[in-house]
Amino acid sequence: MDNRPIGVFDSGVGGLTVADKIFRLLPKENIVYFGDTARVPYGNKSKETITRFSKEITKFLLHFKVKLIIVACNTASSLSLDSLQRSFSVPILGVITPGVEEALKASRTGRIGVIGTGATISSRVYETKIKSIDRNCFVVQKSCPLFVPLVENKWLDNDITLKVVKKYLSPLLAKKIDTLILGCTHYPLLKKAIRKITGKNIVLIDSSKVTAECTRDILRKKNMLGNNKKAYAKFFASDDKGSFSSLAKVFLGKNIKAKKVILCGK
Amino acid sequence: MDNRPIGVFDSGVGGLTVADKIFRLLPKENIVYFGDTARVPYGNKSKETITRFSKEITKFLLHFKVKLIIVACNTASSLSLDSLQRSFSVPILGVITPGVEEALKASRTGRIGVIGTGATISSRVYETKIKSIDRNCFVVQKSCPLFVPLVENKWLDNDITLKVVKKYLSPLLAKKIDTLILGCTHYPLLKKAIRKITGKNIVLIDSSKVTAECTRDILRKKNMLGNNKKAYAKFFASDDKGSFSSLAKVFLGKNIKAKKVILCGK
Repeated sequence: MDNRPIGVFDSGVGGLTVADKIFRLLPKENIVYFGDTARVPYGNKSKETITRFSKEITKFLLHFKVKLIIVACNTASSLSLDSLQRSFSVPILGVITPGVEEALKASRTGRIGVIGTGATISSRVYETKIKSIDRNCFVVQKSCPLFVPLVENKWLDNDITLKVVKKYLSPLLAKKIDTLILGCTHYPLLKKAIRKITGKNIVLIDSSKVTAECTRDILRKKNMLGNNKKAYAKFFASDDKGSFSSLAKVFLGKNIKAKKVILCGK
Repeated sequence: MDNRPIGVFDSGVGGLTVADKIFRLLPKENIVYFGDTARVPYGNKSKETITRFSKEITKFLLHFKVKLIIVACNTASSLSLDSLQRSFSVPILGVITPGVEEALKASRTGRIGVIGTGATISSRVYETKIKSIDRNCFVVQKSCPLFVPLVENKWLDNDITLKVVKKYLSPLLAKKIDTLILGCTHYPLLKKAIRKITGKNIVLIDSSKVTAECTRDILRKKNMLGNNKKAYAKFFASDDKGSFSSLAKVFLGKNIKAKKVILCGK
């Protein structure tokens, strides 16, 4: 048994979906969440910068003596996970591997689409990981840089959003994928719009649930599950609390307040 | 005569349009430009955070002994200019006042529209400034949070961009404005699309040229114009050079390289 908290971080509030799945699956775990809202988004930034930010956040979470860290951001998982794992001894889990395993389970034809931010897609991490497990898979990728702004502006299902979804997904649909990885924590909020364009025969993979399950399995295996009677969740953000709360409401449908913390950029 | 450089900064590359107008109008001035590409955009962040970033950048520019600083970002000008002017003795000029003066000159009916980022519009700085000069003006504002992502993704004039422009501008057009302030350095790149929606009878105000003229007037009045035979322009960015250059090309149509500088977030 290990009652230390689990650390979760994201460039902003998207990773709350992962934190939420952990609350539900592991209600006796304490959670410390950090959203880098002063520097969001990460998806259009360089590997070096994203890795620097991720290391600062990891150090911040370590002050809470976290027993495990989840990088609940596809961009940081794609570009910085290896470097984080090399630099810190605490177990660090990303959202890519859980998503890939789920997609491989779901796909019958082995034709898998991946959508994500510019940085995630350029890294080709999803493609590499899928092919390292099953090299017969056919993988087609597409960056969807307007999806995050659409979600953050709460245009989840209007005619413009549908047009954008169609523009991005048409090339993937033309390749006859049967499974689509939503490779960014913002994208599940566009599921309704995406579903209208893909039809119902394509499996949409949202890695938040699988990531929570993966976390449980790792903690169980290491005999590190928590047993806090009154588990807490603490939220921190690098920009002011207001912006975090208003967007958190879009993601989780409930009010969440974050404490502001300024990380050093050097 | 004063041969020290002029400092120019923006959240990213948009302010290059202002720097470019200064090159052309004042070819004997040295320029030091800083684009905060690691933390871009500013338009969805809080006043406190934007002011903190702006102060860090001002301190960085002061290392170059700049004689004047231009805040070539509407969001930072709206939220942080007062605070910067109080904190530093170097003359600091924003882009709001030049844009407002130009709009007041252009408008025949006194019905002025203002578009900008969420942070700029919430600050109501444009409205306040216009009314402090002419309280009979009618001002209608609209934040256009998708315009920056559209420009950064180079969707300058496709059918989706036109739909977004129409959605944002329709309420302003319904109010019968005759002048529209493009209150963000990204927006002039959407001029073609905006023009298609507004028709040709509405004057579009892009403050970059007026800001350059304003800079010249201030320097002349203070007897601080430069006379560098071989004037230089130095570019710095907080994210890696590559992303700066590729976007700079969208804005100026030419290749510009920036040196990376990490500012401290505290």
